[in-house]
Amino acid sequence: MKDEKKEISRRDVLIGVGKVAAGAAIVSVGVSSFMSTANASGTAYTYKKLNLDEVGRIAHETYFTKFCAETVMTGLFKPLATSVGDPYASFPLNSIFWAHGGMMGWGTACGSLIGAGTAIGLITSGDSTKVTTPGGRAQVAVGEAIINDVIAFYASESLPQYKPAAGQAKYEIKNQSVSDTPICHISVGKWMKKEDVGFFTTERKERCARLSADIAMYTAKLLNEWADGTYKPRNEPLANALDNQITSQGNCGDCHGDNIPDLPGKKV
Amino acid sequence: MKDEKKEISRRDVLIGVGKVAAGAAIVSVGVSSFMSTANASGTAYTYKKLNLDEVGRIAHETYFTKFCAETVMTGLFKPLATSVGDPYASFPLNSIFWAHGGMMGWGTACGSLIGAGTAIGLITSGDSTKVTTPGGRAQVAVGEAIINDVIAFYASESLPQYKPAAGQAKYEIKNQSVSDTPICHISVGKWMKKEDVGFFTTERKERCARLSADIAMYTAKLLNEWADGTYKPRNEPLANALDNQITSQGNCGDCHGDNIPDLPGKKV
Repeated sequence: MKDEKKEISRRDVLIGVGKVAAGAAIVSVGVSSFMSTANASGTAYTYKKLNLDEVGRIAHETYFTKFCAETVMTGLFKPLATSVGDPYASFPLNSIFWAHGGMMGWGTACGSLIGAGTAIGLITSGDSTKVTTPGGRAQVAVGEAIINDVIAFYASESLPQYKPAAGQAKYEIKNQSVSDTPICHISVGKWMKKEDVGFFTTERKERCARLSADIAMYTAKLLNEWADGTYKPRNEPLANALDNQITSQGNCGDCHGDNIPDLPGKKV
Repeated sequence: MKDEKKEISRRDVLIGVGKVAAGAAIVSVGVSSFMSTANASGTAYTYKKLNLDEVGRIAHETYFTKFCAETVMTGLFKPLATSVGDPYASFPLNSIFWAHGGMMGWGTACGSLIGAGTAIGLITSGDSTKVTTPGGRAQVAVGEAIINDVIAFYASESLPQYKPAAGQAKYEIKNQSVSDTPICHISVGKWMKKEDVGFFTTERKERCARLSADIAMYTAKLLNEWADGTYKPRNEPLANALDNQITSQGNCGDCHGDNIPDLPGKKV
């Protein structure tokens, strides 16, 4: 498939591959770096491969006025507005501002992940390819697998990793931390403890700006793989929910300590 | 302002009202039930007042195949696709499916709130009106205040409240619960305990279907008030973050028990 450089529609490719790849672990395919994903209702979020350095730079500088969620979408959509045009150019980026601080400051899911999920969801909305994930316990749309991998990256990596160019940092910060969760409150709290700074500080803002750049760049990296046809899911979606019999994360002890409650296990 | 029935643009209204209402607690205005909110980048999510019963019915029936986030957006956007057309008609509703189960089953923010936030964000993206919220501690865009009120409703109300019409329920359920949080894992866990059923049961799905209908209907109620010019924020955005010096909720003891950790309080 990789040798086929001729211009063919994404839909044709999916129909062809669907027959070949039924039951295979890797179903994600792509034909070029410029890919149209027209969905059933007609809006095509055509994707063109992103430059990761540009995505990171835009995201980092955007954070200080737009906060995490809008920042990640801006890092991804601003270059696409230039390289592709609409619907990226006319997408109201401020529509996702509300997700900052774990949704209007409630400290739930990190807004960078809501921004990333919204962008990935729109870009892959026309791709109904199903992927069987590494552990074989779930079959999900390729876009869902990508989002799940971005969430797992956020929860398991030592962040932030992004280093602003000379003169671009608002403040120099010393520490990285592993959140072990996608939750804003826990993630930022662990880092604040390590850095020994409060929430309403320039240091904490610099940390979240760099982390937003990390999430935007990792999202772009996976989307580029998807466009190239080389994307393979790294993580198993819904594994925690299946293991714990409730939607959940891998960090039970962070809230429950040693006292993990029993849940009713009655199944229908 | 309410007596002015002539056709005037939203932008004209906002410019006029901005001068009058500077410093006032209530700044939200509307001129008719059919309101255009063209934003800076050009996409107009024109809003037409929704019928709450229709929103609830669509949301409840959608849940069993689309789960919470896409369900709430479908309950809101499907009637608007009929009454208004684009951009609702061409919006890829499947783009928000990933947010189910607190983002791909990670149990973070309830997907119904991510669906509601995304819809409110898009619909109000052209309205830059700032509102000073009840406690006077924050000034936010009117759409953010609406989203914050929907989150607070989710966290404080005894849910689900929606009653399907005869024959529409997949299962009869007995209990309501107050989540005291926007977090899926805690919200659904508290209800499961009370109902004494597991997560992968028809009863739990029926609960989340009704709750999704509740969130879609409450969102429509506030958006209708916004369109009428009668919307006033009920809750104070960012109050928990300001009180606790970290993004947070009102349910500290649910995770921390009596052992609320000290945070570094250094401010810049």
